[in-house]
Amino acid sequence: METLGLCTDLYELTMAQSYLEHGKTSTAVFSLFVRELPENRNFLVSCGLEALIDYLERFKFSDEDLLYLKSLGRFSESFLDYLKEFEFKGKLYAVPEGRIVFQNEPLVQIEAPLPDAQLLETIVINTIHLQTLIASKAVRSFLVARGKGLVDFGFRRAHGLDAGIWGARASYIAGFSGTSNLEAGKRFGIPVFGTVAHSYIMVFDREEDAFKAFAESFPKNAVVLIDTYDTLSAVDKVIKLVKEGVPIVGVRLDSGDIEKLSKEVRRRLDQEGMSNVRIIVSGGVDEYKIESWLSKGCPIDSFGVGTKFITSADAPYLDMAYKLVEYEGKPKVKKSPGKRTFPYKRDVRRFYKNGLMDHDEVVPYNDPENGGEGLVKLFLKGGSLKEKLPSLGEIRDKLMEDIDKLPEELKLLKKKDYRVIIK
Amino acid sequence: METLGLCTDLYELTMAQSYLEHGKTSTAVFSLFVRELPENRNFLVSCGLEALIDYLERFKFSDEDLLYLKSLGRFSESFLDYLKEFEFKGKLYAVPEGRIVFQNEPLVQIEAPLPDAQLLETIVINTIHLQTLIASKAVRSFLVARGKGLVDFGFRRAHGLDAGIWGARASYIAGFSGTSNLEAGKRFGIPVFGTVAHSYIMVFDREEDAFKAFAESFPKNAVVLIDTYDTLSAVDKVIKLVKEGVPIVGVRLDSGDIEKLSKEVRRRLDQEGMSNVRIIVSGGVDEYKIESWLSKGCPIDSFGVGTKFITSADAPYLDMAYKLVEYEGKPKVKKSPGKRTFPYKRDVRRFYKNGLMDHDEVVPYNDPENGGEGLVKLFLKGGSLKEKLPSLGEIRDKLMEDIDKLPEELKLLKKKDYRVIIK
Repeated sequence: METLGLCTDLYELTMAQSYLEHGKTSTAVFSLFVRELPENRNFLVSCGLEALIDYLERFKFSDEDLLYLKSLGRFSESFLDYLKEFEFKGKLYAVPEGRIVFQNEPLVQIEAPLPDAQLLETIVINTIHLQTLIASKAVRSFLVARGKGLVDFGFRRAHGLDAGIWGARASYIAGFSGTSNLEAGKRFGIPVFGTVAHSYIMVFDREEDAFKAFAESFPKNAVVLIDTYDTLSAVDKVIKLVKEGVPIVGVRLDSGDIEKLSKEVRRRLDQEGMSNVRIIVSGGVDEYKIESWLSKGCPIDSFGVGTKFITSADAPYLDMAYKLVEYEGKPKVKKSPGKRTFPYKRDVRRFYKNGLMDHDEVVPYNDPENGGEGLVKLFLKGGSLKEKLPSLGEIRDKLMEDIDKLPEELKLLKKKDYRVIIK
Repeated sequence: METLGLCTDLYELTMAQSYLEHGKTSTAVFSLFVRELPENRNFLVSCGLEALIDYLERFKFSDEDLLYLKSLGRFSESFLDYLKEFEFKGKLYAVPEGRIVFQNEPLVQIEAPLPDAQLLETIVINTIHLQTLIASKAVRSFLVARGKGLVDFGFRRAHGLDAGIWGARASYIAGFSGTSNLEAGKRFGIPVFGTVAHSYIMVFDREEDAFKAFAESFPKNAVVLIDTYDTLSAVDKVIKLVKEGVPIVGVRLDSGDIEKLSKEVRRRLDQEGMSNVRIIVSGGVDEYKIESWLSKGCPIDSFGVGTKFITSADAPYLDMAYKLVEYEGKPKVKKSPGKRTFPYKRDVRRFYKNGLMDHDEVVPYNDPENGGEGLVKLFLKGGSLKEKLPSLGEIRDKLMEDIDKLPEELKLLKKKDYRVIIK
């Protein structure tokens, strides 16, 4: 898609037309936030802003788009003219990527004429929701991995190519070492990793022939997969080959009783003085398994983390909304049961105690009384970039700093609430 | 992305290079299937083939892609030359879109020289997985909706733009009436629907002014949202406006006690002779809620179904794999615990009893002994289309035919297994 104007819901356009017809074109502020964190999340990692800024630039309507809209028979000529000229010229306030955030905190706020700000609802939610969801899931593996390597193996079961590519970026921000996803590697400069699949082992008549052939092709970094037939006989074959000088640097386990197998594989390798041969585990890996294996002393060097993180399987969506909070300078509040909103453009101010996060206050933006560290920044004004976007490495570093300041109990997989005060 | 060659995992390329180096270039067959259905699914709906065929045509490597790969320092010049020339020239066998399928049934089979077939693993799984996942979730709402309207409201919380667009298509195949997603509406000709958001109601000083303004803008199909402040006072305002001749055709409930509210809203409307004003319900809707509301007699005319279906929230992934089953005409079997595969290219043969599906047999392809209805067709040969792709309407009709032949107990939300015999 060259233009993204149709990446929206029909009602955004019907509302916009009606706003224009009724003179409702004053400045509005919409706020994107998560109402409540999922049961299995103690915090979120803000992610997706760079993509959103790119998408907003491309949020325009081509002639073909306009022809389609005209064919629906609902829109006036003057509204179609408005869309033809549309480009986002408003302000975008946001929490930068890679910050730890919580419930009710405005991740993105759009300030623009009401119809313009309304049109963007769907694409703002879609973009920030996906990437924040995946980063917030991925960081949980990072927090329990005790420094072991983590590689994104999720591309195949991501919800589309999009989700795989952005998910790789989100996981790198969240502390993964790299990804198997080449498009993400190219686009974002993320390190890429890979081993071999069962198919490779199976096309050779003997398992050891496959191991040897792969090491011949990649003598610097051959990791072989040892669970195709029988894991323990396979590791014995690896040992024999390494003794013969075949340069195998690692073995991957993808099924079976990982606790038992990883310990026995390590024992056999060590017994032969092959303590430099690494053990990589994949197959249904998530933070719960990583924590369980490592707490049982499994000698695993790195993990391939796939399906469960890339789909955020234990919490596959966030209760994220984009709500009108201010119009013509006046507060706007929705009172629907369980869906209450808070008025005004806001900042998130963070208060620390002994170097650790103590609580956040969600307060009116730019109030001189505000204390603490302000998280919300103005990124776009008149549609143009006002704040330099950080590099991927800087975003990742920022998250690591935030993690250092996160109270220990929030780093655990057990539920713990953080105090967010709305003023 | 103009070329999709990098939409793959690194290991597909390392394996391919090694295959080429070791003369492993004979014909291979890979099979895409779901090992086990999720706990909450009695069947799946095949979906995604049209996108896959398009993606395979675009699965090539641009000069920029090749430069990136070269920069990784792992690939040989001759392998990069192979990629430069790569285009898919093999065979693709598949179950057409819109068919009901089960565990262990090959949805897609790729027959091509081993390195070529290997390269496609990630994109084949990614594409068919997403769309089959969403179609299989969406059809559950259709099966319990008793003919009530269903509209896809999922775009905003889909995992990316991709997932929202393909998800809209999948839900239309699965019996939804339409979508709020304009890009999907344009691209696939799916009917589009929409109402208004809370923001619209909130920018007017009085709720009734908002209702009136919207009906003025869209006098043919104004559906207004009535839960922004107080649902029952809002419906009284709607009644007053309709009496005054304001053309409101429906009201939408998005929160609160839907059973109580829908019944009371209906009662108040009917009492005033407004039985033609429809009630639409949205907000956390899924098949479980639809079934529960309708079985309690809630007078709901249609549902906006969003987040939970577009993320397939109760089963956000399928245990789908792409496995080597044949190489050089010889069977290939993987024996990893819980991940056993079955050899040879296969057909799915369906047997009916009294007009209903009785069982399926997964059998060697083209075996003259095969009985029943064959589901697998040859779609691509030499990389070119051999079987005309059906229109979206035809795919949807085909699924409706399959649903008519599905045993009643498989249509329920309760778990029931269907018999699939592997021969």
